[in-house]
Amino acid sequence: MTTQELITQIQQKKSFLCIGLDTDLERIPPHLLEEEDPLFAFNKAIIDATHHLCVAYKPNTAFYEAYGIKGWNALAKTIQYINHNHPEIFTIADAKRGDIGNTSTRYAKAFFDELQFDAVTISPYMGKDSVEPFLAFKGKHTILLALTSNEGAFDFQTQKIDGVALYKKVLEVSQTYSHADRLMYVVGATKAEHLAEVRKMVPESFLLVPGIGAQGGNLTEVCKYGMNPQVGLLVNSSRGIIYASNKRDFAAVAAIKAKEIQGQMMGELEKLR
Amino acid sequence: MTTQELITQIQQKKSFLCIGLDTDLERIPPHLLEEEDPLFAFNKAIIDATHHLCVAYKPNTAFYEAYGIKGWNALAKTIQYINHNHPEIFTIADAKRGDIGNTSTRYAKAFFDELQFDAVTISPYMGKDSVEPFLAFKGKHTILLALTSNEGAFDFQTQKIDGVALYKKVLEVSQTYSHADRLMYVVGATKAEHLAEVRKMVPESFLLVPGIGAQGGNLTEVCKYGMNPQVGLLVNSSRGIIYASNKRDFAAVAAIKAKEIQGQMMGELEKLR
Repeated sequence: MTTQELITQIQQKKSFLCIGLDTDLERIPPHLLEEEDPLFAFNKAIIDATHHLCVAYKPNTAFYEAYGIKGWNALAKTIQYINHNHPEIFTIADAKRGDIGNTSTRYAKAFFDELQFDAVTISPYMGKDSVEPFLAFKGKHTILLALTSNEGAFDFQTQKIDGVALYKKVLEVSQTYSHADRLMYVVGATKAEHLAEVRKMVPESFLLVPGIGAQGGNLTEVCKYGMNPQVGLLVNSSRGIIYASNKRDFAAVAAIKAKEIQGQMMGELEKLR
Repeated sequence: MTTQELITQIQQKKSFLCIGLDTDLERIPPHLLEEEDPLFAFNKAIIDATHHLCVAYKPNTAFYEAYGIKGWNALAKTIQYINHNHPEIFTIADAKRGDIGNTSTRYAKAFFDELQFDAVTISPYMGKDSVEPFLAFKGKHTILLALTSNEGAFDFQTQKIDGVALYKKVLEVSQTYSHADRLMYVVGATKAEHLAEVRKMVPESFLLVPGIGAQGGNLTEVCKYGMNPQVGLLVNSSRGIIYASNKRDFAAVAAIKAKEIQGQMMGELEKLR
């Protein structure tokens, strides 16, 4: 998917919501455990109920890997279901991978070719030759961790190198990589004041912003500091939507929660005009 | 496996060789492609031929994920085969994972509980709450990326924070995490001179050293700078051993290559006495 197609989808749906499919057998409605593939059954119901309210889905691979082969099967079925039924949706494998050159190419093939995701999240720690193999894929997007929404972000990401925080070095250096136009960045909503500085450094890049809802981030603040004229934001919510109810009405309640956020987003998008 | 059991194995086998199972359908002997599960058939033959010469196997998960469900199946069969037939062997999932707290716990369960690896490699970029969920597992080991063997290591890892290279900050800060005694570190052999400084900072930790062979590292140098009185090293070789021949004799040739390195290691271990 091209960035322009993503922007068009945002304009049409009046939403820049990304729904995180962090699907956990211990948290899904108990009646689904009787299904042959409870993880996929849950995801399918959530997708059916919310696809018109969001522009992206982001399964976190950890939740699927924890169930071994069955989990990978559910992940593969989920992405196939989205791609087949809702090809306009932007799909993100939240995998936080990264390895040396030829090995990163393998990960890129796993997520872009084998599973057919549009984007994958990548850790920048190993530098250029660990990131560029992902950037080599045309029509695909590499979402680099810059400033994450957890406490541990202060261990290294905000530490200063020559007076510049590491996460800013990541922005600066990664913009010199080949096909840097295929980069997006993860910037946590819990650190909204940092978003303004990030936006200054990468004015055109899309930012994937986790931490709205369960992690305490505020949508208005995120938009104030992070939006650019082409929107430039994908704001993620996971638990606040998908686990809003764990009864038989879970998908309908998820849609209500998604609709609430989409409504706020519509208001923010109107400010752009 | 406890660290002491690993040390005992090293003493008994007179080896601290780790063999990387970076198994690639494009590089394995063509006759294996007729097998039902070529990835596992290759790994099984390599393990049967080399298990007495090495103390650890390290499948890199990227190579398996690239083949989707089939790849994960082959990975699961490989680790089961090692654990069942050679329970003394230390097994490392070279996965370079890392995510926020509850998500890292999922990855830890995937590799420690579901697949039953002894250790997993982790990226430090997200800090304390992304690493400690792995450290919570008793009898398991978390191998943190410190200084990797690729060119991109110079992008961020060697950049200085308050005069101290980021990779050294990673050593310093991670040693304050709960259960830091369950930490090991990745330090590339291509930067042997850095090993002396790493050894000074973490005198007792095991170091996993990739980059011997194909990537140009030198075993004598690595031992000179990196060994401690309990050995404290796992030196990895992947392609130089497993792809030494791509004919029907591949396993026998792999054993010859592994034996060469084990012979050098025996010499280095004698210097310790």
